[in-house]
Amino acid sequence: MKAVRLVAPTVVEVTDVPVPEIGPGDVLVRVGGAGLCHSDVHAAHMPELPFPTPLTLGHEIAGTVAALGSGVDPAAGIGEGTAVVVHLCWSCGVCRACAAGEDNVCEAAGRMAQPLCPGLGPDGGMAEYVRVPARHVVPIGDLDPVLAAPLADAGMTPMHAIRSAQDRLGSDATALVIGVGGLGHVAVQILRATTAARIVAVDVREDRLEAAVRHGADIALLADEALEAVLGLTAGRGADTVLDFAGSQSSVDLAVEAVAPNGAYRLVGILGGAPRIVAAPSLGTGWPWGASLRRTYGGTRSDLIATVALAQRGRISVDVERYPLTEGPAALARLEAGEVAGRAVLVP
Amino acid sequence: MKAVRLVAPTVVEVTDVPVPEIGPGDVLVRVGGAGLCHSDVHAAHMPELPFPTPLTLGHEIAGTVAALGSGVDPAAGIGEGTAVVVHLCWSCGVCRACAAGEDNVCEAAGRMAQPLCPGLGPDGGMAEYVRVPARHVVPIGDLDPVLAAPLADAGMTPMHAIRSAQDRLGSDATALVIGVGGLGHVAVQILRATTAARIVAVDVREDRLEAAVRHGADIALLADEALEAVLGLTAGRGADTVLDFAGSQSSVDLAVEAVAPNGAYRLVGILGGAPRIVAAPSLGTGWPWGASLRRTYGGTRSDLIATVALAQRGRISVDVERYPLTEGPAALARLEAGEVAGRAVLVP
Amino acid sequence: MKAVRLVAPTVVEVTDVPVPEIGPGDVLVRVGGAGLCHSDVHAAHMPELPFPTPLTLGHEIAGTVAALGSGVDPAAGIGEGTAVVVHLCWSCGVCRACAAGEDNVCEAAGRMAQPLCPGLGPDGGMAEYVRVPARHVVPIGDLDPVLAAPLADAGMTPMHAIRSAQDRLGSDATALVIGVGGLGHVAVQILRATTAARIVAVDVREDRLEAAVRHGADIALLADEALEAVLGLTAGRGADTVLDFAGSQSSVDLAVEAVAPNGAYRLVGILGGAPRIVAAPSLGTGWPWGASLRRTYGGTRSDLIATVALAQRGRISVDVERYPLTEGPAALARLEAGEVAGRAVLVP
Amino acid sequence: MKAVRLVAPTVVEVTDVPVPEIGPGDVLVRVGGAGLCHSDVHAAHMPELPFPTPLTLGHEIAGTVAALGSGVDPAAGIGEGTAVVVHLCWSCGVCRACAAGEDNVCEAAGRMAQPLCPGLGPDGGMAEYVRVPARHVVPIGDLDPVLAAPLADAGMTPMHAIRSAQDRLGSDATALVIGVGGLGHVAVQILRATTAARIVAVDVREDRLEAAVRHGADIALLADEALEAVLGLTAGRGADTVLDFAGSQSSVDLAVEAVAPNGAYRLVGILGGAPRIVAAPSLGTGWPWGASLRRTYGGTRSDLIATVALAQRGRISVDVERYPLTEGPAALARLEAGEVAGRAVLVP
Repeated sequence: MKAVRLVAPTVVEVTDVPVPEIGPGDVLVRVGGAGLCHSDVHAAHMPELPFPTPLTLGHEIAGTVAALGSGVDPAAGIGEGTAVVVHLCWSCGVCRACAAGEDNVCEAAGRMAQPLCPGLGPDGGMAEYVRVPARHVVPIGDLDPVLAAPLADAGMTPMHAIRSAQDRLGSDATALVIGVGGLGHVAVQILRATTAARIVAVDVREDRLEAAVRHGADIALLADEALEAVLGLTAGRGADTVLDFAGSQSSVDLAVEAVAPNGAYRLVGILGGAPRIVAAPSLGTGWPWGASLRRTYGGTRSDLIATVALAQRGRISVDVERYPLTEGPAALARLEAGEVAGRAVLVP
Repeated sequence: MKAVRLVAPTVVEVTDVPVPEIGPGDVLVRVGGAGLCHSDVHAAHMPELPFPTPLTLGHEIAGTVAALGSGVDPAAGIGEGTAVVVHLCWSCGVCRACAAGEDNVCEAAGRMAQPLCPGLGPDGGMAEYVRVPARHVVPIGDLDPVLAAPLADAGMTPMHAIRSAQDRLGSDATALVIGVGGLGHVAVQILRATTAARIVAVDVREDRLEAAVRHGADIALLADEALEAVLGLTAGRGADTVLDFAGSQSSVDLAVEAVAPNGAYRLVGILGGAPRIVAAPSLGTGWPWGASLRRTYGGTRSDLIATVALAQRGRISVDVERYPLTEGPAALARLEAGEVAGRAVLVP
Repeated sequence: MKAVRLVAPTVVEVTDVPVPEIGPGDVLVRVGGAGLCHSDVHAAHMPELPFPTPLTLGHEIAGTVAALGSGVDPAAGIGEGTAVVVHLCWSCGVCRACAAGEDNVCEAAGRMAQPLCPGLGPDGGMAEYVRVPARHVVPIGDLDPVLAAPLADAGMTPMHAIRSAQDRLGSDATALVIGVGGLGHVAVQILRATTAARIVAVDVREDRLEAAVRHGADIALLADEALEAVLGLTAGRGADTVLDFAGSQSSVDLAVEAVAPNGAYRLVGILGGAPRIVAAPSLGTGWPWGASLRRTYGGTRSDLIATVALAQRGRISVDVERYPLTEGPAALARLEAGEVAGRAVLVP
Repeated sequence: MKAVRLVAPTVVEVTDVPVPEIGPGDVLVRVGGAGLCHSDVHAAHMPELPFPTPLTLGHEIAGTVAALGSGVDPAAGIGEGTAVVVHLCWSCGVCRACAAGEDNVCEAAGRMAQPLCPGLGPDGGMAEYVRVPARHVVPIGDLDPVLAAPLADAGMTPMHAIRSAQDRLGSDATALVIGVGGLGHVAVQILRATTAARIVAVDVREDRLEAAVRHGADIALLADEALEAVLGLTAGRGADTVLDFAGSQSSVDLAVEAVAPNGAYRLVGILGGAPRIVAAPSLGTGWPWGASLRRTYGGTRSDLIATVALAQRGRISVDVERYPLTEGPAALARLEAGEVAGRAVLVP
């Protein structure tokens, strides 16, 4: 079959590979759509990789179950022909974290590492078929796999961040979303669908702000005017929840200065910003008492199930551009150049 | 191998059966201890059974992993020789409830039924070996399997009920434990270890009340004096949490009259009591505003992990009487006659 | 000033009374709107009253602060001229429950009684002025007091019930609202605004179901077809949350049979129904494992603040019929006859 | 009456002042004990003060109610002669935060400031009498006011931090307490009383570690060996909860490196440390996914009530040194010199 592979560090090619073999507890998924993500671009540029090559890329995957490994019980709802999206945190399933439903921080992955992620370790979904542990597929009913694929990351990751701030998203809350691109524009929709919070979108690009308003943002602000405006909107108190999909120094500075006391700052972006928080009595520090900072990674199976449910009810959607699988390298180049509106999805 | 089996309705015998075969995703456990429970007595008297016979009894099981089925990854911490206790809610692992860590109400079991339970459906642990899905064993380190076996039910079930009342067990709370026998005397210990709540034990037997005090109860009351005493202790407000391990009409009546506004009533016992709750404006009703009633079943894998941790730290223990496997039927008769102090455990 | 008073049991009249005096910590509110509630009708029929007469009725009150008692600090946001709605649970403010924000179950009210409620104890708001403890007014900004008055009960009470079921109202949840009249039609709007749950409205009247759909219900069902339909919609699992604004025997029977395992049943109505819940092992019982039952009363100040915020953002509204204060008795008669659509509000 | 006052910046003296007058809603407290805190030392050294002088110091106050202001209802449990401890966050009582029970981050205090604190704004308790808003006293029953005074800060502040980490303090949790002096040695006791977490105490002083073990710590570690030891104890995973009562660069570095994924880092100390957290994909960062950082300030009235309850049940106690009021300046000097074991309390 065809696959978009990182054949060696910095070398992405479309090659022919065998259809994957599956073992006990696995399913074989015939790929219907495989989304492209900035972490694919990042991986394609790393001179040294934390995983072996060659490797099939792709961690936003949806498709149809083509075969069941031994020990997979169709009675549990996953059978041949079931349309599914793939959960990207392949966890052990038995540790204390997994038992508690916190499978995105599975203990088997150690303290700092992440659970195995298809396309960034095991072979991913930019191919005709992909092997997946059966626990890590979620049925999608009659959703189009091309539209469902980005739910795996661009949908689930904001859902996880938002659910972790649930108690700061009451009817009288203000939510600040910094960066309303691939993940952020879905975050706006999830907030709109699941809370009554006032949604303030912040970005450096006007076109993204316009899209955010279409997706349900109440207020849209360019980054350099955001701090003053947010404090003005909240009588100087700040935003109850801040979702930061940039993670740059300027975005974390904004978040630190704009979050309310006891507020929730959820930091998803990874552009190298360092929050300025000091254990000092001074009133001059920007970080208020009781505010919580969390860096959240991906999401749990439960988060993905909730994300799929929203999409099935038509409450969220991801704008996608479709490309044939063989144009994967070209699509990656477009993504890197900032030319993709929404999410690029490869269709085998 | 030898096994204590329900060979037909109402007929319990020790018989010879083959060692179980295991499939993908299973482990074979060499049984070190198998606890007896009142539900075994109940099953042994049912003229019609909701599951096929012959059936090996026993759902409180601890032992040592003797073999791994295909697809079971020893890297996840379960290998040959690992000492384990068996989780008794064999859930599907993939549904919405399981993904959220609520595996004791697995959706695959339908609305009213319970997940598969070894010894009350699939063959259980009153035998030399038992087949168990790998997800449903929890390592116990160097705990004695004979002492660990009762943790599977007499430990985990109270742990689940208590955790579900966590927000009503603060430092200024009063917890009422009705029925301090097999499960209740462990509930007292868990409350003592995990909360600062004032613990009030209630029973109809003096010897059990004495044991409850030894296990950490602050106050012990005979059932017929309990209501007045609890209201007196709480300035008329009632107990913030009520754990009812009897479930008789008199125990549920006590619970309804003794629980505080916004309090938590957790009903575990199944002796047929019906709580008198009426949707009426009258002040005459006994059930206060905001109090919550839940009937809880078993516990989750997470609850069992927490229970094992407490036992490993020496914070809880179950008094046990040991019997050879071949004396299973006799031990059941002693249990039915009320002659077992603590928990009877069969040792193959 | 004019006031609608219960001058003696069963006798409602418009009479002249002095403007109330206020003491330290009070405010005097000039009434802009006073809603009528079925509990007013109920009180007007009681042959013996649990409070002294004569009494000014009215517990759904909004208006403008006309005077501050000593010790009320305008710096806290309540000054002369501030438009406010009145919180109806007049709690002590210092007990353990009040300190925790659970002021609707204030300890000073004892175990079964409710906190003081204006119009059902102290004089209420069907008058030109009303005395209110300063802690129990909430600013409403530029909301019309006539529209804001019903928020005090018809808005806050569903808000409290819904917030108490928050963890059963995720994106993949189904919420069943039984009785979509005065409180229920606001509940539908709150669910729509604050959750992504699928909303199923149930009533015995077609016109109310039509209104419920306009207010955001996804599905509307006549009561006698509801159980089968809900189980069908949820693959037999039941509704994650059931809000019961009737409380009749048929509504509680429906709730018991239709709630999901681990689901939340919140019982607000008070028509005398008794939930059939039995502590039994049998699978025949309708009440599933883990489901919680709570009877909720009114709401907290925090709930009222959240309700006002929703109204200010235009996410909820109550349909009202306006009557002059002097037509209070006639309006009560219309309410009793079932002729009021939405909520009747007296305008002094 | 006598009072220990900051008569001007850096000048602490015992002077004669009038007994305070009280207004509506206030109580006059006859001081039984007034604790000394490092923030008193800090204030005594500030060349410029954020509040006017002269000022009576003292924010850890217990005593007896001597008089009630108008509008204070003795029915709510506070009357003449009631023994009380004083809550140190004097909040507005009506804002959104206060209504929700989050009075330590009262909105009236703005975004970065703290609610009024007696002794650091209004006159405090190092005097024979002190004026206190009635909402801010908590009954202590027959506790000795000298022993109860330190509960106001050294007890309540750790209680607040611990309660905010409740969901990371389950039976299988490990809690790291950095700095086991004035607040930390109470934190160890609260953890011991209210959780079953394994408690690891860290300090730079051996005598404090010994005291921590007497107070219930399971393991005591000198600071420079702590990181390796904690990771060793937790299979490399880290501590589920870290309570940092130092707040120095070395303590925050330890916390960042030692907290577990999804763990809770609660930062109370204010010695100027800055946590090194970076929004980066690299595995080299020390801050794990999902961990939460919060700087917590003081506590809520609810926290203080819970703290008093623990003390009344004998589960926590503060070691105190008693000094006459007139020796206040000398006691401050001893505290600054590190010569006070436990807490110094002035007794008028």
